[in-house]
Amino acid sequence: MTRTSEFEFRGTTGDIGLPAAIEALRRLGADWELVESRMGRRRDDPAEAVVRLHGADAEAELAMIEAGGRRLHDRDARLGRVARAGACPRGFHSTTNHPTEVRIGGRWIRVARQKMDTAIVVDAKHGAAECRTIGDVRRGDLVVVGDEGVRIHAPARETRRNGHFSFMSSPVSTEKPTQALIARVAADIRAARAAGLKVCVVAGPAVVHTGASASLASLIRAGVVDVLFGGNALAAHDLERQLFGTSLGSGLDGAPHAGGHRNHLYAINEARAAGSIAALVKRGRVKAGIMYEAIRAGIPVVLAGSIRDDGPLPGVVTDAIEAQKKMRVALEGVGVVLMLATLLHSVAVGNLLGSHVHTVCVDINPSSVTKLSDRGTAHAVGVVTDVGTFLPQLAAALTAGRGRRPRAR
Amino acid sequence: MTRTSEFEFRGTTGDIGLPAAIEALRRLGADWELVESRMGRRRDDPAEAVVRLHGADAEAELAMIEAGGRRLHDRDARLGRVARAGACPRGFHSTTNHPTEVRIGGRWIRVARQKMDTAIVVDAKHGAAECRTIGDVRRGDLVVVGDEGVRIHAPARETRRNGHFSFMSSPVSTEKPTQALIARVAADIRAARAAGLKVCVVAGPAVVHTGASASLASLIRAGVVDVLFGGNALAAHDLERQLFGTSLGSGLDGAPHAGGHRNHLYAINEARAAGSIAALVKRGRVKAGIMYEAIRAGIPVVLAGSIRDDGPLPGVVTDAIEAQKKMRVALEGVGVVLMLATLLHSVAVGNLLGSHVHTVCVDINPSSVTKLSDRGTAHAVGVVTDVGTFLPQLAAALTAGRGRRPRAR
Amino acid sequence: MTRTSEFEFRGTTGDIGLPAAIEALRRLGADWELVESRMGRRRDDPAEAVVRLHGADAEAELAMIEAGGRRLHDRDARLGRVARAGACPRGFHSTTNHPTEVRIGGRWIRVARQKMDTAIVVDAKHGAAECRTIGDVRRGDLVVVGDEGVRIHAPARETRRNGHFSFMSSPVSTEKPTQALIARVAADIRAARAAGLKVCVVAGPAVVHTGASASLASLIRAGVVDVLFGGNALAAHDLERQLFGTSLGSGLDGAPHAGGHRNHLYAINEARAAGSIAALVKRGRVKAGIMYEAIRAGIPVVLAGSIRDDGPLPGVVTDAIEAQKKMRVALEGVGVVLMLATLLHSVAVGNLLGSHVHTVCVDINPSSVTKLSDRGTAHAVGVVTDVGTFLPQLAAALTAGRGRRPRAR
Amino acid sequence: MTRTSEFEFRGTTGDIGLPAAIEALRRLGADWELVESRMGRRRDDPAEAVVRLHGADAEAELAMIEAGGRRLHDRDARLGRVARAGACPRGFHSTTNHPTEVRIGGRWIRVARQKMDTAIVVDAKHGAAECRTIGDVRRGDLVVVGDEGVRIHAPARETRRNGHFSFMSSPVSTEKPTQALIARVAADIRAARAAGLKVCVVAGPAVVHTGASASLASLIRAGVVDVLFGGNALAAHDLERQLFGTSLGSGLDGAPHAGGHRNHLYAINEARAAGSIAALVKRGRVKAGIMYEAIRAGIPVVLAGSIRDDGPLPGVVTDAIEAQKKMRVALEGVGVVLMLATLLHSVAVGNLLGSHVHTVCVDINPSSVTKLSDRGTAHAVGVVTDVGTFLPQLAAALTAGRGRRPRAR
Repeated sequence: MTRTSEFEFRGTTGDIGLPAAIEALRRLGADWELVESRMGRRRDDPAEAVVRLHGADAEAELAMIEAGGRRLHDRDARLGRVARAGACPRGFHSTTNHPTEVRIGGRWIRVARQKMDTAIVVDAKHGAAECRTIGDVRRGDLVVVGDEGVRIHAPARETRRNGHFSFMSSPVSTEKPTQALIARVAADIRAARAAGLKVCVVAGPAVVHTGASASLASLIRAGVVDVLFGGNALAAHDLERQLFGTSLGSGLDGAPHAGGHRNHLYAINEARAAGSIAALVKRGRVKAGIMYEAIRAGIPVVLAGSIRDDGPLPGVVTDAIEAQKKMRVALEGVGVVLMLATLLHSVAVGNLLGSHVHTVCVDINPSSVTKLSDRGTAHAVGVVTDVGTFLPQLAAALTAGRGRRPRAR
Repeated sequence: MTRTSEFEFRGTTGDIGLPAAIEALRRLGADWELVESRMGRRRDDPAEAVVRLHGADAEAELAMIEAGGRRLHDRDARLGRVARAGACPRGFHSTTNHPTEVRIGGRWIRVARQKMDTAIVVDAKHGAAECRTIGDVRRGDLVVVGDEGVRIHAPARETRRNGHFSFMSSPVSTEKPTQALIARVAADIRAARAAGLKVCVVAGPAVVHTGASASLASLIRAGVVDVLFGGNALAAHDLERQLFGTSLGSGLDGAPHAGGHRNHLYAINEARAAGSIAALVKRGRVKAGIMYEAIRAGIPVVLAGSIRDDGPLPGVVTDAIEAQKKMRVALEGVGVVLMLATLLHSVAVGNLLGSHVHTVCVDINPSSVTKLSDRGTAHAVGVVTDVGTFLPQLAAALTAGRGRRPRAR
Repeated sequence: MTRTSEFEFRGTTGDIGLPAAIEALRRLGADWELVESRMGRRRDDPAEAVVRLHGADAEAELAMIEAGGRRLHDRDARLGRVARAGACPRGFHSTTNHPTEVRIGGRWIRVARQKMDTAIVVDAKHGAAECRTIGDVRRGDLVVVGDEGVRIHAPARETRRNGHFSFMSSPVSTEKPTQALIARVAADIRAARAAGLKVCVVAGPAVVHTGASASLASLIRAGVVDVLFGGNALAAHDLERQLFGTSLGSGLDGAPHAGGHRNHLYAINEARAAGSIAALVKRGRVKAGIMYEAIRAGIPVVLAGSIRDDGPLPGVVTDAIEAQKKMRVALEGVGVVLMLATLLHSVAVGNLLGSHVHTVCVDINPSSVTKLSDRGTAHAVGVVTDVGTFLPQLAAALTAGRGRRPRAR
Repeated sequence: MTRTSEFEFRGTTGDIGLPAAIEALRRLGADWELVESRMGRRRDDPAEAVVRLHGADAEAELAMIEAGGRRLHDRDARLGRVARAGACPRGFHSTTNHPTEVRIGGRWIRVARQKMDTAIVVDAKHGAAECRTIGDVRRGDLVVVGDEGVRIHAPARETRRNGHFSFMSSPVSTEKPTQALIARVAADIRAARAAGLKVCVVAGPAVVHTGASASLASLIRAGVVDVLFGGNALAAHDLERQLFGTSLGSGLDGAPHAGGHRNHLYAINEARAAGSIAALVKRGRVKAGIMYEAIRAGIPVVLAGSIRDDGPLPGVVTDAIEAQKKMRVALEGVGVVLMLATLLHSVAVGNLLGSHVHTVCVDINPSSVTKLSDRGTAHAVGVVTDVGTFLPQLAAALTAGRGRRPRAR
């Protein structure tokens, strides 16, 4: 027979922890049912609910307690004895920073000196309990083990936002596992393409400055990119790299070339003299790089102008409203947008997309991802990393073992 | 008679938008009741609910729609005619980026070309509707006005997190109104003190480097600070400023002094020679600054050592575990903690606090606030600003019109 | 008779430390002469020089030593005895991290265990010397005092870049004294105006989001601003604040208003319906704020469009090249440019300016200042701070005690 | 016969551009000699010098001009005619933002409307010249080509700092080519090991959080790491990853595990119960990861405690001064230090090192590198990138094609 456990939630209709609990169970994939549920009519009316968990799922039980649920048919807290000073019995109850009670001898006792990441040491004789860091438990101490007989009073605000006490719940952080994120982005792109959706890349000039332009070029060559958006600077520095070996005057080793500050302007001038970027490619002046591959592949490219542009290059759409229109047309059928190190273009493209489009924003500055989200593109997945290391690894993941491929259109 | 409106939510018990809707109503302070509520037992069981709003509260109605609610007894969308090309009738329905339908002639029509921040232009004759930027509406066009007859299909994930489509919902951002945040922090400190709670300041050396040490000193002198935590660097640079006019070798004008890199070490050496920081004060060598005021006021000070310390100063607690214990004792009775430009000490103090303590974290780097939150101190209020401008304004707000005051103890 | 001291520099013409030494002397305002100077013809030819310092300027002497100079007529290092364990004699020689020798008994001895911020303890008997942290000196130890008899071998690269070992020499940092920087900016603006030069402000929408728009408005009202540049967003959120009390949908307290995400679009729509922003002012719809003051003052305003714009507002120049031309015309006679929290517009304006224009770039993100500098505007003074606290203090400094003033034109 | 060119520098002894010019020539590897050099004795005394360049090195000639040198035996500026509107003749002179003159018909003419990145259009008839963006040159216009007959008046400050007008001269930037930097770091490590020097890695817990711990482990296994420094958190999260599959409670996919916030504390508790981390390895509880490899390899490890530590783990040195001493001993013979995503430990180790040690600091936050440099470790090479993508690529570069190797000791 499967073990079940039941948790009771009580509060007001507006404040009860039930929604947070249901959200946590959904995330955990737990097996549960709602045994009772009485919501009031007004927000301050009393509300109560009972959730029954099937199977001894300790994580789900903990989530119920941390969301403010109280175990029905509760038993006393289980206690374990400290065998070695400074170390607790395995499975000891590790505290949150919220007010906590433990049941000892049928009575609920408030735990003193509440802080996070400690053990609860019980003085059964005096009916007392306190938080103690594991370094301070003494041989023979009794500490609470597991979650039975423990009640946690999470503040209402907290309960509602995160469901339960947690670490690393910020959506945007420099401390996420990057390799795994790259694998996930690669999988998403593969899935979208398999579903016949197009992939749009929005790239800033940092793609060139950080030395990743060959990777983006290889993604285009492999047929992974269906639409390319950028600005004058993306194309100018890509051409500068091809024609003069520099970007913003610095070589691939990062060292400035003397007089190199002229190179991007010379690159722009060459394209203007030739009449178009495509003409430079046709004449064999440019033989590789992002623009070369995009032109060879014949994918739609929108280069949108901005007030900081030199030149600009022929083909750059200098009117902002006209550029928006061209981008919108090119976005038809796009299912994934990959935004690479460009806040301006990312927000612009985010403005043009429905929320069903899978949007990934890669930037070394966490603020860029936050700003994109704060301008309505809340569904964007943020990857806080260096595009100079991200793109080569993404390209490796997506182009392994294949030559030129037809693309979705 | 008050106008009421009703919104129906349908979905599964695990996914229904009701909790988000209730949360939004709570925030808006709306007057509402839950007319019906049928939750299933299992998460995939169907669920439904009807919320009735009292009073014609357009914001609340919009929140219901954006959370996935559908207006009962719905009417056709109201249409307004464009009087001047490129401008819409006042109160036009401004779109989200979520799939949307409008009711025209009793029929629900899917809006084409969905994107955010546009008007919905209706072609009643052909039963069509599309998003159009306001710059592109033409004289005579019919656009949807208000929220009636509009259905928005927010994706489940989004619904649950934010309740509804929004801007600026990130908790940590460089784009918050700083003056208002300062006023709020000042009010919180006043309220805590009025309630007999203590105020603890945790300060990093950037307080000195950015020229704000006089402000912190004035807060201590005015009796606003009951407990002071910092590291060796805070005290060393405070003394360096008092003894040599520099911090990290730079003057108050930010220019490095030649040979100034020696000054902090000379300051530490003086204190070591004197035997204690207090001895420097007693001998009249130090006549102002943070440490001077803290010693004069007799408040508890914990200076915790770290591996990057020079010296250290006498009184610095070099053992990390011992420092934690001293801090924990000093935190008894503290109701507000103000963390100023120090990630290390902020996380350390956050670890020691129950979640009931009002915690404000001031840092110019948004990542610092995110990291504090990701280590369990999720209740911290983050203020992303420059402590060099923040502290003078906070001090002005808190010390206006008063001399030395007794402090809570 | 004034004491003089002489320092000899030897090396190759390409690598000698003399230029760095001269730079350091210039900064210190020292009184010096170049007694000898023999540069070779080729970079690898030997070079030598002797610098004579007038007056016993310890800082200048230290700078000579730290730049690789060797004192002529050198004497033995002066030694002091440690009176109290863990504290050194006043004026002890505090080390750098560069290889160092001390002269003891006429012989140069290499100091062992080189590290920064330590004392040099001498074992005269065995002719040995080592770096020792001040905490580790023992009663009776002999430590080097002052800089005589000390040779520091700074690596060539280092010597050239910074002149000498130093702290806080980075031009862009979050750890500069902000109040002093504000005073300096205010003084620069006053000086420019006194010289009949114009002041141009380039502002991003964060000025509004951080609650500083009233401060910018007051600067315009006081006649301090002669030219205003911004984008569609600056004006849109300024109008949104005036018409609806929000910016990007959030109130002055930073809390999002329900449905507030519509407000900036409604603001743009009102201006489009009125035909111009000035018409909104004329009709009394807008009664304060940045645009209101700029229109009342009649100063030139250029609002340059970008691809992320909604609307745009009437008067926004949507073509990037045309906007550049308008900005360039408006910049005639400008002597100070204040760039406020906008990377895009800052780089754009930097591109248009000669290096004689005093340029101040205020941004909370140090990367913004670095990027501006890396795009050729190397003469910009960076202030890494929160524009939300910076502007109110600058406005207070510049508008104290005066009403409306005529402006330079 | 080789072409030579001569450049004259005039100014005061304190301000002349010669030092900057020599520095630029050194960087360019140009062939030059110093034909004359008369420095004054006092800083305000006149100074002059003539530099002769051998070979027609256009970059070197440009550097001379941009450093304030004037070409001797100067000729008129060479002019080219615009063949196509909006494009200039190849090799046209691209301007800086410094005041500029051109020689036309033997006369020096000041160029009007100075700005960077433009062409100089000459009106020979009226003896006038002005800056014109390349988009604005008209068919038939005469523009200056090359650098002859051009004088640039760089401001003294600028001249001295950077040698000449440039882009991308900031030492710390997010816009450097990361792949090339990784190759350079790998080469430096190989060179140091070939020279018999040790390699020390200083690692923060972000190495684990970003999923790069397997890469660091592989570097240790391959014998590339001789000394390992970190804190309690590095080891705790490494063990957490091995024992529970999480770090700070999140799985390798970045998703938080329910109850996962307990895992690092459970990991610490296990090690405390076992008595040491090595005991966990010996008992087979931990079979991979950073600590496992370090223990198996027997390399010196110093784990330094801090006030934010939980536990701590057995073996962590909780006293800061004792930890500094242990680190200093372990650093004997170290020639390369690789600092990975930890500001605290990086500054601490920087304090202990002589400037001859090759120091590389990897951090996603440019401020961390700036702070390290501002605390005296100015010789550190900063790599602003994501350690989660950096380490796998560095490990691939250093461990390719080899098994376990003996290490330098």
